[in-house]
Amino acid sequence: MVHGRVSRLSVHDVRFPTSLGGHGSDAMHTDPDYSAAYVVLETDAEDGLKGYGITFTLGRGTEVVVCAVNALAPHVLNKDLGDIVGDFRGFYRQLTSDGQLRWIGPEKGVVHLATAAVLNAVWDLWAKQEGKPLWKLLVDMDPRTLVSCIDFRYITDVLTEEEACEILQQSQVGKKEREEQMLAHGYPAYTTSCAWLGYPDATLKQLCSEALKDGWTRFKVKVGADLQDDIRRCRLVRNMIGPEKTLMMDANQRWDVPEAVEWMTKLAEFKPLWIEEPTSPDDILGHAAISKALAPLGIGVATGEQCHNRVIFKQLLQAKALKFLQIDSCRLGSVNENLSVLLMAKKFEIPVCPHAGGVGLCELVQHLIIFDFISVSASLQDSPSN
Amino acid sequence: MVHGRVSRLSVHDVRFPTSLGGHGSDAMHTDPDYSAAYVVLETDAEDGLKGYGITFTLGRGTEVVVCAVNALAPHVLNKDLGDIVGDFRGFYRQLTSDGQLRWIGPEKGVVHLATAAVLNAVWDLWAKQEGKPLWKLLVDMDPRTLVSCIDFRYITDVLTEEEACEILQQSQVGKKEREEQMLAHGYPAYTTSCAWLGYPDATLKQLCSEALKDGWTRFKVKVGADLQDDIRRCRLVRNMIGPEKTLMMDANQRWDVPEAVEWMTKLAEFKPLWIEEPTSPDDILGHAAISKALAPLGIGVATGEQCHNRVIFKQLLQAKALKFLQIDSCRLGSVNENLSVLLMAKKFEIPVCPHAGGVGLCELVQHLIIFDFISVSASLQDSPSN
Repeated sequence: MVHGRVSRLSVHDVRFPTSLGGHGSDAMHTDPDYSAAYVVLETDAEDGLKGYGITFTLGRGTEVVVCAVNALAPHVLNKDLGDIVGDFRGFYRQLTSDGQLRWIGPEKGVVHLATAAVLNAVWDLWAKQEGKPLWKLLVDMDPRTLVSCIDFRYITDVLTEEEACEILQQSQVGKKEREEQMLAHGYPAYTTSCAWLGYPDATLKQLCSEALKDGWTRFKVKVGADLQDDIRRCRLVRNMIGPEKTLMMDANQRWDVPEAVEWMTKLAEFKPLWIEEPTSPDDILGHAAISKALAPLGIGVATGEQCHNRVIFKQLLQAKALKFLQIDSCRLGSVNENLSVLLMAKKFEIPVCPHAGGVGLCELVQHLIIFDFISVSASLQDSPSN
Repeated sequence: MVHGRVSRLSVHDVRFPTSLGGHGSDAMHTDPDYSAAYVVLETDAEDGLKGYGITFTLGRGTEVVVCAVNALAPHVLNKDLGDIVGDFRGFYRQLTSDGQLRWIGPEKGVVHLATAAVLNAVWDLWAKQEGKPLWKLLVDMDPRTLVSCIDFRYITDVLTEEEACEILQQSQVGKKEREEQMLAHGYPAYTTSCAWLGYPDATLKQLCSEALKDGWTRFKVKVGADLQDDIRRCRLVRNMIGPEKTLMMDANQRWDVPEAVEWMTKLAEFKPLWIEEPTSPDDILGHAAISKALAPLGIGVATGEQCHNRVIFKQLLQAKALKFLQIDSCRLGSVNENLSVLLMAKKFEIPVCPHAGGVGLCELVQHLIIFDFISVSASLQDSPSN
């Protein structure tokens, strides 16, 4: 049973100088220093367990997120952990609807990143006290308790609490088998590590060759800065991986809507499964227009790593704006908000493929996607990682 | 001519305890302390002029915005003011697309509020050096220079630079007369000061009576917390102001989409001109659904004070989601981004009625709306303040 009162919240500004090697570079983030605001929760319980939670950042600005975590701290300090997770919907609402703090969001940008870091730490502590990894805590939780963690505000026109429960109930069938499958084989993945935009062709070639040897079958290439460069790099990768393996492209929001359609029409010959983040993460109708234009070319639209909350995801689904939905474990409001997005994706039959390029993201997101497979989507079919 | 190098940027956390009297209270912000992050720019020029810029906040969290302003400061310090305003589009892009900082936005929430405060200070300094109020600086600027201040990224599918120029050219006719009209009569306004949600009925009655004596003809009432309260308060105000004067309602994002329609159907008997912020500021499709449902009742949807950038406004216009567009002088990226929204509103023939309830907002926004009347919309027709 969860227990203890939160006695301390500390937050650290952790930065890695990844820009020195061009790692993580793309068309909009040319010099990222992969970083994180790192939250540690301690309680007065005698077990000595701590909750660790992060939100991913790119270097400069991490101190701003740290400042926002400290602004949220009074909502967490001296709270009983049992009270927090016993009314997790209420606690989520308390953090995101603080009558003064919400003005500088609401549920977006710095304050929402900070909320994610704090809530990720709460979930981590809860799972540790239960002696389970997070995915297993979620998988073992009954549907009613799971949905009680979700704030349905602003999404009831698409997903009510009752519908969410029904989805979870229906996915009970075969859960045990899917859990065994995950334990035996893990969840399929792709690699972006070969083709960051800042890498010279020689590096790209070498890394791609190594990845092929290591057994990778799905490769993502960063595009969007220069069309001739993109054509050369995509040709290089497609030639190396052959026609059967999967190629994805990622423009990191570089284009306007007409430009995205034009550019991708020229890259269509390399048979990409998807174009990721073709334009502004806020442009739902823009993504819908791009999806419609690229569908005849067999190219799907993927987006989500900078979609700031469940309201944006709701509309992307309503507008048929994406074919692959990319949740982020610490841009959305932690597990709580991700649960609502996984359930909406299931309702619209859109596969989820999480964003995982960053400090700690792979570690966090594996729990969400394994839970999704076992308890929600129940399928690897049509998954971009498949 | 603009001159001088920015030698100092200081930023202050200014708070007023407005929550003590319930001033500014609404259905989502029950205890706001009207506050601001206040930026002062100094140059090495001998004129000793300083640029003042703010962004409005509600108390807690102002320190987070201050932290973000300091994170942006290196982009401004030691820059030549002539270089900044000479390539204002580029400077706006530099602030909003910093390859590391944009991750914690982009162009939304804390970093965008900070961007607005910094840019507002730049515009203030520019206007002071020219010896003009800001509205006059804008009105006297030729169309080509005006559009060179706008970053058209992500809006070219709706408004190109050429179209923006054409709109401004077409509105040259009658400019002089409209400027004289503004100088003689000012711009019409409404009042929200009578009916904050936290006011008891006696206060509401007294303030409404005083406002009527002072000659106000348009009144806004906060709604959304409790239907019976809303009915009582709206009846009270409508009875006091009579059937001819204008009544508006403001729910401050309290409702989900179906709830908004249901609630407003019950308040329709009080003949509101508009319902403001019926749901999440991020829900473009939700606003469109509400607009469609309430149109037969003669109620328009107004929104914008928490629309975080031009991409959201673009879509609200594309989706026919609003009948009145409410820009904010310091949530959008200052004058630069507001110019793009004023021009898009003109293209879609939607009247602009700025958000002005907050510290310094009335002072800032009067410049934008006077410019809009003289140089863009050229009309008070259909304006909510009319």
